[in-house]
Amino acid sequence: MKTLLLKKHDVGRLISMAEVIGAVEEAYKAFSSDQVEQPDYIGIHLPSLRGEIDFKLGYDKVAEIISMKAHSGGFTNNPVEHGVPNSMGTILLFDARSCALICIMDGSLITGLRTGAAGAVSVKALARKSARTISSIGTGNQARMQIRAINEIMTIEEIHAWDSTYETSSKYKADIEREFGIPVTVASSKKEAVERADILITTTRGKGSLVEAEWVKPGTHIVAIGTDQRGKQELDPELFRNAKIIVDSLSQCTEKGETWHPLDRNIIAKDDIHGEIGEVLLGRKPGRESDDEITIFDSTGMAIQDNTTANKIYQNALANNVGTFFQFFEE
Amino acid sequence: MKTLLLKKHDVGRLISMAEVIGAVEEAYKAFSSDQVEQPDYIGIHLPSLRGEIDFKLGYDKVAEIISMKAHSGGFTNNPVEHGVPNSMGTILLFDARSCALICIMDGSLITGLRTGAAGAVSVKALARKSARTISSIGTGNQARMQIRAINEIMTIEEIHAWDSTYETSSKYKADIEREFGIPVTVASSKKEAVERADILITTTRGKGSLVEAEWVKPGTHIVAIGTDQRGKQELDPELFRNAKIIVDSLSQCTEKGETWHPLDRNIIAKDDIHGEIGEVLLGRKPGRESDDEITIFDSTGMAIQDNTTANKIYQNALANNVGTFFQFFEE
Repeated sequence: MKTLLLKKHDVGRLISMAEVIGAVEEAYKAFSSDQVEQPDYIGIHLPSLRGEIDFKLGYDKVAEIISMKAHSGGFTNNPVEHGVPNSMGTILLFDARSCALICIMDGSLITGLRTGAAGAVSVKALARKSARTISSIGTGNQARMQIRAINEIMTIEEIHAWDSTYETSSKYKADIEREFGIPVTVASSKKEAVERADILITTTRGKGSLVEAEWVKPGTHIVAIGTDQRGKQELDPELFRNAKIIVDSLSQCTEKGETWHPLDRNIIAKDDIHGEIGEVLLGRKPGRESDDEITIFDSTGMAIQDNTTANKIYQNALANNVGTFFQFFEE
Repeated sequence: MKTLLLKKHDVGRLISMAEVIGAVEEAYKAFSSDQVEQPDYIGIHLPSLRGEIDFKLGYDKVAEIISMKAHSGGFTNNPVEHGVPNSMGTILLFDARSCALICIMDGSLITGLRTGAAGAVSVKALARKSARTISSIGTGNQARMQIRAINEIMTIEEIHAWDSTYETSSKYKADIEREFGIPVTVASSKKEAVERADILITTTRGKGSLVEAEWVKPGTHIVAIGTDQRGKQELDPELFRNAKIIVDSLSQCTEKGETWHPLDRNIIAKDDIHGEIGEVLLGRKPGRESDDEITIFDSTGMAIQDNTTANKIYQNALANNVGTFFQFFEE
């Protein structure tokens, strides 16, 4: 019984963004077909000036793979004090037929990749086909990852970007223009950025509304990434009143996603949620039905996205003889 | 940042039973000093004819080590169908100062070792100094491990053993006599075995009382190992009425240990529990106070025992240059 070990460098070159998008689509479809188990995650909060480590478990009954992702974050002193990044991850894959440990891989890239792919999956399913302009509220790593993923599935003609500091937005503009050749305008206000959007992406650590409902023009698709915990918020809850609301997981989004806010204020009821993205991908529910609908995709992130993405990486490694085998036991 | 990989073979030879006993004592003391975090474990039950995989997390604030043990069991078809054992384990150790992954080791031996050591720790703290005769209800792997551990800390003159099948007991007799040179009598009844005991060990998968209260003679120390889930039971709840009850974890034992049964029947109240073994080891509560007390140690098993045991193995590996380093990322 041999276990495949994959370094961060291997993980990065073993999967294309197009493959991550495919893996995330599989994850959503399996989830909305009752082919997934995802127990509540467990975590430990370390004392002040350190951070948090979480352990997330997912079981994909289609592929018969169990994944466990350990992910730490917030350790701002790590680079200086310990010579390691402030966020690290490790993923274990088990063959669910025997529970043998088949792969251990660095997991620091996968969260970013599968979250970027989530936005692209929603754009394919829900944005207007004529959409060309993206606005990005937030210009950090995940904002870049969204562009990298969406750029795989449509032609982006221009990007309007806003962040709380001009330096961050300028750096984003330079990076995106160099990497993708897409012109970026740094918006002078959130309002200006939002008003220009065919597709609006929010990837901040916001804890209050950043996007007013009246700024959003008909036909906009909103990719709401930032809110994955109670206390976080990016959108005016009024936006949900007349929008088509699609979530990654009904249970997660109504408990701790962006969708929690309009529910909490009785602006919408649970029945007003159109459905899960997996249901749309499976054809069980319609996606966008007119060019002037506002669609909102609320992404809280699921362990099953890590699972299918890591399994694709593992399969690619086997097919290309990448990685190192280690025998934890002989039997 | 390098991660140490340790095979099952390394794990087995890197730690002595005396060191496991020391590690488990440290675990109990840290736990009863509020130096431990152990979130509820998460697990997945696989479909019929397979088994279960659990993930248990422990944080030792004294050593600043976080451990995660993945442990599968029950896969009876594994050896024939997949060429792997029916139970497997993997342990990850993280440096809690940075959450860097410092070690991955095979974890299939540690549960057995630290559970055996638990019994020995309780014997040191709670059995009569004149105890020489052990009775074992149950003669499987863990029954052997209890003898291996207790044999480190006292002189065992004779063992009386009982199991539901004579074949299992005879095999146990042959193995124990060969490995430890301790004479074993296969008892013709549970009653006969229990009546002879200075120290009584129960390690069955029992789901009802196996030991009647009136069989137990004054001065006996009982090591109750088998019950770690609601639904399991080994002892007559009446035994608890006049015994000194010591638990590994108050919260676990009152929820799902042997101690749950007398609580459920109102034979005892929570206040009748003498305390945690860690409190006795720390000198905060007395252990045995007379030669005719009956003492009961209820062991449900804790992640922190895996943590301190695995950390001792890791430290010994570093000190002896055992194992293989693997670099999951360069930074």
